[in-house]
Amino acid sequence: MNSFKTERTKVKRIPDRGHYDKKTIYPIIDEALYCHVGINHNGNPVVIPTIHTRQDNTLYIHGSAASRLLKSIPGENNICVTITLLDGIVLARAAFHHSLNYRSVVIFGKGDIVDDPQEKWDALKIVSDHLIPGRWEDARQPNQKELDATTVISISLEEASAKVRTGPPGDEDEDYALPIWAGVLPLALTKGELVPDPVLSESIDIPDYLR
Amino acid sequence: MNSFKTERTKVKRIPDRGHYDKKTIYPIIDEALYCHVGINHNGNPVVIPTIHTRQDNTLYIHGSAASRLLKSIPGENNICVTITLLDGIVLARAAFHHSLNYRSVVIFGKGDIVDDPQEKWDALKIVSDHLIPGRWEDARQPNQKELDATTVISISLEEASAKVRTGPPGDEDEDYALPIWAGVLPLALTKGELVPDPVLSESIDIPDYLR
Repeated sequence: MNSFKTERTKVKRIPDRGHYDKKTIYPIIDEALYCHVGINHNGNPVVIPTIHTRQDNTLYIHGSAASRLLKSIPGENNICVTITLLDGIVLARAAFHHSLNYRSVVIFGKGDIVDDPQEKWDALKIVSDHLIPGRWEDARQPNQKELDATTVISISLEEASAKVRTGPPGDEDEDYALPIWAGVLPLALTKGELVPDPVLSESIDIPDYLR
Repeated sequence: MNSFKTERTKVKRIPDRGHYDKKTIYPIIDEALYCHVGINHNGNPVVIPTIHTRQDNTLYIHGSAASRLLKSIPGENNICVTITLLDGIVLARAAFHHSLNYRSVVIFGKGDIVDDPQEKWDALKIVSDHLIPGRWEDARQPNQKELDATTVISISLEEASAKVRTGPPGDEDEDYALPIWAGVLPLALTKGELVPDPVLSESIDIPDYLR
């Protein structure tokens, strides 16, 4: 399947911004460090942020086996996972045309608990690789008690859409002559200086994969 | 009312991370540039990112009057608005104890359309002030056609919780002796260099409020 377009994922507002192909959707999923998961809980929507990763056509989210969110997911026929990357504030001449530049993905699907020990182990490794490549091999890897305390949920990617806005503002024709500065203020999630654990031994250097 | 704690908003997992006071919740809402709104659409959860702002005890979200999301909200008894700020990746010695530093708020409430023209105008101004203080006065302000094409939803803040993780990793006692680097990689949304609209007249300088 090369398109994730369905009646439900079709972008109705400003359809030019809608995308349904893996080439657009996968990089957005992969760049984001967290997602927002929406479920129905007793008929009411509940939206919770959590960590995700993707391998091939499967999205994984994980968390504590005690988490209410993760415990509710396997019983749900439908969950919604939304991922948003903010790229800038769009300053138009007209207040009405102000906007954000962003890349977002909305995924509909069914979540299943990953029971197979090897798939669960591999999923935890790719969650780790997603956050910090190289960390998994360096860290003390999970023991059985820790694996049992962790739930991994897999969601097969079948219904999804991306919505993307890029570029300069779009103003009304008659407003371009106004003496108002217009353009984009770029925004990006950036890394700061590493902060060592206060109890870290000074003999332990920062590993190459963190530099 | 000084606490937003209810049975539904009470943080069950790691309750020490749960907060219910305005002093914790309001600054998280105010720092974030966007939120994720969850609604039930034909019984299925749908989560959409959008722009918000807050004044006193009211959260405002706004968008096109043609938006499916905004059109569905007034009929819903319950919506969920979740706001997440990512502050860093927490590198523990054990893979299991890796985490994110974050500040998130989950709000449950009912959305009402803002019909009163003055309240709607004021809400649009504070949405603008939230994104870029000073911009509203400089931009060409909305005309009646644009106001009619915009829907503003108000949500009274009554049920909410914040969840906050800060600081260094927490490892198992026996792992602190391992020769593994541990600490926090800070992350923050940062502003880049302004990008002028390609058709902007060179005679228009960047205004002070954008410097």
